[in-house]
Amino acid sequence: MIKKILVANRGEIAVRIVRACKELGIKSVAIYTDADRHALHVKKADQAFNIGSDPVLGYLNAHNIVNLAVASGCDALHPGYGFLSENPLLAEICARRGVKFIGPSPEVIRQMGDKIEARRAMIKAGIPVVPGSDHNLESVEEARELANRIGYPVMLKATNGGGGRGIRRCDSEAELLKNYERVVSEASKAFGKPEVFLEKCVITPKHIEVQVIGDSHGNTVHLYERDCSIQRRNQKLIEIAPSPQLTEAQREYIGKLAVRAAKSVGYVNAGTVEFLLDADNQFYFMEMNTRLQVEHTITEQITGIDIVQEQIRIADGLPLQYKQEDIRHRGFAMEFRINAEDPKNGFLPSFGRVTRYYAPGGPGVRTDAAMYTGYVIPPYFDSMCAKLTVWNLGWENVIERGRRALDDMVVYGVKTTIPYYQEILKNPEFRSGRFNTGFVEAHPELTEYSVKPPPELVAATISAAIAAHLGM
Amino acid sequence: MIKKILVANRGEIAVRIVRACKELGIKSVAIYTDADRHALHVKKADQAFNIGSDPVLGYLNAHNIVNLAVASGCDALHPGYGFLSENPLLAEICARRGVKFIGPSPEVIRQMGDKIEARRAMIKAGIPVVPGSDHNLESVEEARELANRIGYPVMLKATNGGGGRGIRRCDSEAELLKNYERVVSEASKAFGKPEVFLEKCVITPKHIEVQVIGDSHGNTVHLYERDCSIQRRNQKLIEIAPSPQLTEAQREYIGKLAVRAAKSVGYVNAGTVEFLLDADNQFYFMEMNTRLQVEHTITEQITGIDIVQEQIRIADGLPLQYKQEDIRHRGFAMEFRINAEDPKNGFLPSFGRVTRYYAPGGPGVRTDAAMYTGYVIPPYFDSMCAKLTVWNLGWENVIERGRRALDDMVVYGVKTTIPYYQEILKNPEFRSGRFNTGFVEAHPELTEYSVKPPPELVAATISAAIAAHLGM
Repeated sequence: MIKKILVANRGEIAVRIVRACKELGIKSVAIYTDADRHALHVKKADQAFNIGSDPVLGYLNAHNIVNLAVASGCDALHPGYGFLSENPLLAEICARRGVKFIGPSPEVIRQMGDKIEARRAMIKAGIPVVPGSDHNLESVEEARELANRIGYPVMLKATNGGGGRGIRRCDSEAELLKNYERVVSEASKAFGKPEVFLEKCVITPKHIEVQVIGDSHGNTVHLYERDCSIQRRNQKLIEIAPSPQLTEAQREYIGKLAVRAAKSVGYVNAGTVEFLLDADNQFYFMEMNTRLQVEHTITEQITGIDIVQEQIRIADGLPLQYKQEDIRHRGFAMEFRINAEDPKNGFLPSFGRVTRYYAPGGPGVRTDAAMYTGYVIPPYFDSMCAKLTVWNLGWENVIERGRRALDDMVVYGVKTTIPYYQEILKNPEFRSGRFNTGFVEAHPELTEYSVKPPPELVAATISAAIAAHLGM
Repeated sequence: MIKKILVANRGEIAVRIVRACKELGIKSVAIYTDADRHALHVKKADQAFNIGSDPVLGYLNAHNIVNLAVASGCDALHPGYGFLSENPLLAEICARRGVKFIGPSPEVIRQMGDKIEARRAMIKAGIPVVPGSDHNLESVEEARELANRIGYPVMLKATNGGGGRGIRRCDSEAELLKNYERVVSEASKAFGKPEVFLEKCVITPKHIEVQVIGDSHGNTVHLYERDCSIQRRNQKLIEIAPSPQLTEAQREYIGKLAVRAAKSVGYVNAGTVEFLLDADNQFYFMEMNTRLQVEHTITEQITGIDIVQEQIRIADGLPLQYKQEDIRHRGFAMEFRINAEDPKNGFLPSFGRVTRYYAPGGPGVRTDAAMYTGYVIPPYFDSMCAKLTVWNLGWENVIERGRRALDDMVVYGVKTTIPYYQEILKNPEFRSGRFNTGFVEAHPELTEYSVKPPPELVAATISAAIAAHLGM
């Protein structure tokens, strides 16, 4: 049995993993760079080790991290998301050093990380993919021929890309010719390999992804889907489970498709199969994420299943405790990524000291935060500083709960996406439950809110002034 | 439709009601005495009115409160729990002044408030009651005769009492003779009437209560039961839903019994039917609480139904949106009453400044708090300063989640019941799910924990010292 886990990450997801460990009676070891010495995950874990003065590099050094896991007596390692989580090297080193990697095998990570390989595997398994290349493009000439065959617009993509980067849309042959070398160069710089491929562009699709879990005993189930269509520049902002825009028949279809996809590659542990849903109600495989997702919380809320604890149990060789038919979904859950950004200023990051922080409370509200009053959000990392997840029985109710919980949440000192989300929740198109990945771009007016200091701040300022005056 | 509600209460329940109002798009008006001018409910409501310099009296002045409701344009009033919530006068004045009272009719409040009347109504409806008086006792002589007939031990109770006060157990005739005048005097002082009655004492029963909701269209449903056996001196500490110690047959039986009890008195709005369950698995009606309970949160967690919003809709004349068969329960929920008390010192209240407060986060955790960092808990009210509610799919899982969430919760500056609850969660008897109302008294050793400052405090103190040193 796993007794001690090294949490190879930072921020809210490191705190999330520590919480799962505590509930399972497992010791946790945090890692941190100098920039993170006051981070919440360091305070919450049983032990914490400094991994260097550079803010970021320590989190990317697989050899050092696994060495530390071994030296500190950890028998397992959880990679979280981002950083090394989809780097097969980390999983490989863990295997070599006898540390259980809490995630799938390095082979599957590698296969799904290569978008061409992943496409091939899915085609073989009978999963619909967007029409496009079945191998890396060898020349701009080949790209042009293929684009003419499948029709414009097309997407040029880095084969080893992901997370919405290394992608360009081409609406015409002229654009394709102009972008080809650019994407090759980006792929080379950002992902270390100049390989690119081409797919037909699905115009403003819905982003629907399915959470799957497989154990090492051959059992694979899905935990229903998430609708992540509310994105800005391919970065998710609000996620919803289940999707308000699927029929029950579509829900069943996509769930089965995801399980088939996972089984076809021998997937073990938790993973996500991402699909595009086009205007003609056709689903296409997009990619498989071989790790925990940021938005796993909404799936936990509707199914009641603790996905991080399941990941740990599976890595420990335990079988799933339920079958597909035991997994029910109830109500709707919505996650808001609380980013330290200024939506009114092009979503510019807004790092600095959090002068006051209160999590919202009451029914149907969950917070996964990496901050506290006085915490200084460092500028070196992703701007997400908390996730607010709300749940309620119905679609309209969950929107109202979201409005209330965002109103209830107090983050002073940095600008956040909270007021922007309040505007989205008022938007009739969003409220109708019918939206696609073009929503954010189609509604630039949603950043035109006026920010007034909340009553709490006014009251607090006044009482602080009074207190100061009285010498309290 | 209700547009504006006066919240005739304070503390966490006032915040809870304001949250429900916000989700329904209803304006809220808070009231506060001077002692509560910095209270959270004052900050969270849309408007707040000072109702006097005495810390408590303002909350007990029904006429003034309803006047304020009318003057501030409220069309409804929510009484919360405690204070005037079970005083039929408040409901009556509301009716006279055209303000919708969010609760049952004054007649039902009065009938259930008189324990003899309530017994009679239940007997008439075929609900089992503990053997005892069918009218107020007229003399100690009558008490002695009745006690001899039903057998010792017996309970002497104030007819208009409640909340575990005005009650004495008598194990012998000598004790009965000694206690009679004492209870009469207590009843007179605490509840304004010298009336007392007598019941057979059910020895260390389980406390099982059923949440019921009736609308004004004749529909009445139950939302399953809560196990409130973990009490100290008749004050609940930890509540669980559903009870881990009922069979499905018992659950169905007690639910139907509660609905029958509510229907028999024409109950409209949310209420709770409290039962005792003795060692022979016999249920007895104890009392009906004609108001929202502190522990309604655990029922919300297992059913997904927002009870406070239901109360408001029902007071607005709307029918229930579901039938009994639509109401499902999932998993287990557990509420911890976080009291500002020192369990190691006879649970002595520990009021004062909260120097640091953080709500716990992550999956399956809900907080309903009335405090914030810097808040001074006033000494005039109940010591409960927050409620921590946890949920998980299984019984053992919910215990582990409770341990983790209590560990995650930060309340510095005052002593709380948090470390005491950690001891209860470790106790094998509690963990077995088999316990009765004698549990706390039977385990005095559970207060023998040692308190060490949590790592956060040490880290915070050090970093504060460093910050101070650096002049940050």
